[in-house]
Amino acid sequence: MRSLLLSRRDLGFMLYEWLDAEALTRRARFSDHNRETFDAAIDTAEQLATELFAPHNKKGDSQEAHAVPGEGCLRVEHIPEVKAALDAYSAAGLMAAGQDYEHGGMQLPVVVQKALSAYFTSANVATSAYTFLTMSGANTLLKSGTPEQVRRYAEPMFAGRYFGTMCLSEPQAGSSLSDITSRAVPDPQPGPEGERQFRLSGNKMWISAGEHELSDNIVHLVLAKIPGPDGKLIPGVKGISLFIVPKYMVNDDGSRGERNDVVLAGLNHKMGNRGTSNCLLNFGEGKFQPQGKGGAIGYLVGQPHQGLANMFHMMNEARIAVGLGAAVLGYTGYLHALDYARNRPQGRHPAQKDPAQPQLPIIEHTDVRRMLLAQKAYVEGGLGLVLYSARLVDEQNSAETPEAREHAGRLLDFLTPITKSWPSQWCVEANSLAIQVHGGYGYTREYNVEQFYRDNRLNAIHEGTHGIHGLDLLGRKASMQDGALFKAFGAELRKTVRKVRGSVGAPDAVPAGLAEISQELLAHADALDAAWQAVEVVTQKLYAAGDMNKTLANASLYLEAVGHVVVAWIWLQQALLAAAALDEDADFYRGKLQACRYFFRWELPKVEQQLELLASIDTTTLDMRDAWF
Amino acid sequence: MRSLLLSRRDLGFMLYEWLDAEALTRRARFSDHNRETFDAAIDTAEQLATELFAPHNKKGDSQEAHAVPGEGCLRVEHIPEVKAALDAYSAAGLMAAGQDYEHGGMQLPVVVQKALSAYFTSANVATSAYTFLTMSGANTLLKSGTPEQVRRYAEPMFAGRYFGTMCLSEPQAGSSLSDITSRAVPDPQPGPEGERQFRLSGNKMWISAGEHELSDNIVHLVLAKIPGPDGKLIPGVKGISLFIVPKYMVNDDGSRGERNDVVLAGLNHKMGNRGTSNCLLNFGEGKFQPQGKGGAIGYLVGQPHQGLANMFHMMNEARIAVGLGAAVLGYTGYLHALDYARNRPQGRHPAQKDPAQPQLPIIEHTDVRRMLLAQKAYVEGGLGLVLYSARLVDEQNSAETPEAREHAGRLLDFLTPITKSWPSQWCVEANSLAIQVHGGYGYTREYNVEQFYRDNRLNAIHEGTHGIHGLDLLGRKASMQDGALFKAFGAELRKTVRKVRGSVGAPDAVPAGLAEISQELLAHADALDAAWQAVEVVTQKLYAAGDMNKTLANASLYLEAVGHVVVAWIWLQQALLAAAALDEDADFYRGKLQACRYFFRWELPKVEQQLELLASIDTTTLDMRDAWF
Repeated sequence: MRSLLLSRRDLGFMLYEWLDAEALTRRARFSDHNRETFDAAIDTAEQLATELFAPHNKKGDSQEAHAVPGEGCLRVEHIPEVKAALDAYSAAGLMAAGQDYEHGGMQLPVVVQKALSAYFTSANVATSAYTFLTMSGANTLLKSGTPEQVRRYAEPMFAGRYFGTMCLSEPQAGSSLSDITSRAVPDPQPGPEGERQFRLSGNKMWISAGEHELSDNIVHLVLAKIPGPDGKLIPGVKGISLFIVPKYMVNDDGSRGERNDVVLAGLNHKMGNRGTSNCLLNFGEGKFQPQGKGGAIGYLVGQPHQGLANMFHMMNEARIAVGLGAAVLGYTGYLHALDYARNRPQGRHPAQKDPAQPQLPIIEHTDVRRMLLAQKAYVEGGLGLVLYSARLVDEQNSAETPEAREHAGRLLDFLTPITKSWPSQWCVEANSLAIQVHGGYGYTREYNVEQFYRDNRLNAIHEGTHGIHGLDLLGRKASMQDGALFKAFGAELRKTVRKVRGSVGAPDAVPAGLAEISQELLAHADALDAAWQAVEVVTQKLYAAGDMNKTLANASLYLEAVGHVVVAWIWLQQALLAAAALDEDADFYRGKLQACRYFFRWELPKVEQQLELLASIDTTTLDMRDAWF
Repeated sequence: MRSLLLSRRDLGFMLYEWLDAEALTRRARFSDHNRETFDAAIDTAEQLATELFAPHNKKGDSQEAHAVPGEGCLRVEHIPEVKAALDAYSAAGLMAAGQDYEHGGMQLPVVVQKALSAYFTSANVATSAYTFLTMSGANTLLKSGTPEQVRRYAEPMFAGRYFGTMCLSEPQAGSSLSDITSRAVPDPQPGPEGERQFRLSGNKMWISAGEHELSDNIVHLVLAKIPGPDGKLIPGVKGISLFIVPKYMVNDDGSRGERNDVVLAGLNHKMGNRGTSNCLLNFGEGKFQPQGKGGAIGYLVGQPHQGLANMFHMMNEARIAVGLGAAVLGYTGYLHALDYARNRPQGRHPAQKDPAQPQLPIIEHTDVRRMLLAQKAYVEGGLGLVLYSARLVDEQNSAETPEAREHAGRLLDFLTPITKSWPSQWCVEANSLAIQVHGGYGYTREYNVEQFYRDNRLNAIHEGTHGIHGLDLLGRKASMQDGALFKAFGAELRKTVRKVRGSVGAPDAVPAGLAEISQELLAHADALDAAWQAVEVVTQKLYAAGDMNKTLANASLYLEAVGHVVVAWIWLQQALLAAAALDEDADFYRGKLQACRYFFRWELPKVEQQLELLASIDTTTLDMRDAWF
């Protein structure tokens, strides 16, 4: 039976035929690797995801993580399958898949790691959240922590013995992080190796994996403010520092010490993602008395007042992970819908008037094919965008020249809000279409697709809402470094346009019988070129408005328009490869070409109206007044 | 505190200022009524909905209707609040709100009945489903049943003692009703008053309210086929007849008789609408032996083989009800989001760089206002469309001339697929935006909006899926009676365009200071006129394709495009009234004008791309092959 998690054929196409992951094996860091070792890792991921993650996805939803009284405070219980799956994940060494050999890692490139994550997340987004938070927390410590912090916290995380969290939001401060009020007061007592120690107090909201008993310890990475000499907190983001706050203190020999003063105040009960505990945590309310007094003990990561910059490493990783999660939840929903459509008989063709004829599988109905093709265009486009971004991380880390690394970094920074937001919008739409293909069955919990829809709806909210990423793209990324990021991306897009014109535009380059496809790709290239030119014009006009309230009023629409252009570009790259390889695996590549056609005929033209609206500096929403609602 | 169910101000505007419900009181049937009696009924609905329906909406979701072993078969339990609410509803006479006085009714117009339903449905769609199914089932019997059937079944339904269902779908026959296989075999024994009696057998799927203990009896209206002399079923819809199958036989004196052979085989567990039992029912499997043998006893409604035509009365009523449900779930979500946005402080304006300034209520952020304004445009537009359709039912029933009644019928037939589908698409989008406005809180079950989103997602599926309504609009309604329905609607739209030009187009008709609004409304009228012209051209082109597979390939897109033009027209009608009344209640009418502006600037232009695609007779989806997925 074909996997309903992901298409391995498509994943292979993206990794090897398109993103040339094998080229990375020519770099020193990945020189032990080759396509076989990459594939072996993916095989492991597919198998573990299929055998240990997918089977409890529905059960983890219906029997969600819940709080029960524990010793002195609330604790969280999961169904036992969660720990079993995570233990197997850690035992396979996957928590350290991308890490140095010296940390017990496999030194896999990021793009391959994301392929592994794609399997786990499509199988069970709630259980795999624990792996992601642990890996990205440990990565943050590798980047900004001291060697002792790495030894004491990150290494057990890479081994899967400790799990991680990121504690940013507070009940009164979500999108507006500058308003956090958690305090970190220097403790007279020094920490291990003479490190400065702090006592933290405050409340953290929306903390995924904030409390559980799935690992020996939980390493919270916490944003808090160190009060000035007058005891006051510095307003704004400048006052924010980053701290390690372990659930249990760690003794010098690595054994578990006393309980730190971090306790679960309550769980949030979500529409989806129910298998991940999501917590309100109280720091330093005195329920536990580490080292004899209340106040959660924490250790500074990096420099004081640089907390947000240090946390951004984790946030940017999280944003790509959110985009990946959205894309693969869409992907598995699509495969479920496809499977259902091939097997469910219902109705006949419009021209077939004889009701005595047998019913057709619903994939024979054009409207069902429309819904499947739209899903394919969204989910393969979304996954493509995410893997492209992951590949950029590898370039940023290990490209041969500083210029190439800088260029990759610019592209990545520009694309990050889109990589996070586009799949979070359109792959939820794909999940809605997957329900629709199933009809009434899709609306029931007896089938899987309604859960994907609920699980996926989170992705436009966490790690920066849709609106926040609109502001990030238009208000920061588009103008940053005098527009260098924006220009770097435009240059890349135009490179593809030229490539299409060069390879299928030359009369003698057209293989016999493929003239029609060549014409079509050339038309797509023209449309993409024109769309990007329109984006350039609109971006200039928006900044020329000379009033940031007007410039940014419709930033979400800008995010959506640019996102569609970016994904059209992703599709054109894939289609160009498909056209060239058509002989080899005709059905697969025809599918790519048809999905590309769908995107260019049905989706990209939507952008025109959006860009016109943006170019008109429309103030409909800006002018609306509270009293008029 | 303002109601979070609906805006009474807006409902009053739609009923009295726009749809002139008072004019109906000049007709004989409604001559006892006046605005005060209408308002008194709405007051009752608002109060009952607020006090008895809304409070258990969340509880009915988390403690859903469930099956437990009963005497000889499964039975269904609800939380007790459901029966209490429905009893109060019946006691207030609301089951018969639109019926003749002789049936214990209030003789309210349909448009006012829908205003009542709007309150109950926005408060609790699951509990109010029982009322809707009962009322529309009884209406069907009034229209097609015998006087004895009306006395025996419909009257207890209007009194709220019996509840109703519609049993159409079967596990193998949902969208394709022609494939039902339930059999109705004539019984040698005659029914009451010598009526022919049948024995039914088969399985019915997706039966809302199919089993419960909320009423003394359940009156199932069942589609089944009467076998021919050879014992075979006639293929296709021609073989379908409509039957009454009561859960309990009804004695001649109206008392409850023995149990009929209809049993619950199982419940469907849905993503939303969990408070309504949704059943797989087995008819005639012999678990009960009415009159000494197995086979569910049923009575023919109307003529044999006319079952679908007779059921269409109920289905058309149901389609308007689905549109209403979708619109008001959107509406209550919008009001929840508005309330949250006014009270949640978060962040500051882009130009405000001082983090020491207090945070603003999020309604001050343009992107939040965009999301609220979009919701307003969708939900008030959607509710307007539904109430306009309901008003057409009144015209169809009681307009003074046969021509006027026929014209109303044509408009209604044309608009029904849109009235059902447009709110089911866009008011779910409104619910998604309501979640987004709430941020993380909106994703939790501690708040109300996630349930609205789940509940509302059903509406694009039941009573004909989105795709089925696309085929109905383009394949039937647009061409029916030589295009008379299509033309009737076009004439009505153009009447509005002329009205705008006549009233604000004449230079001396422009009130001082409102020149800008007049210009804007004229521009809207031009845009609407042009959009309809484009619909006309596209419709002709689609039929000129000469191949129904091509004509109908993109029927869903046609439905969506025409739907947006129709709702633009609804908005322009409302805006014209708002412009004229601006002095009286400036904030309210400014809100209407701004929402209309939003619709014409942000939404209507989307149609252009859709119509271009349709005009090109695009075959992207038609050409896609199974093997390419």
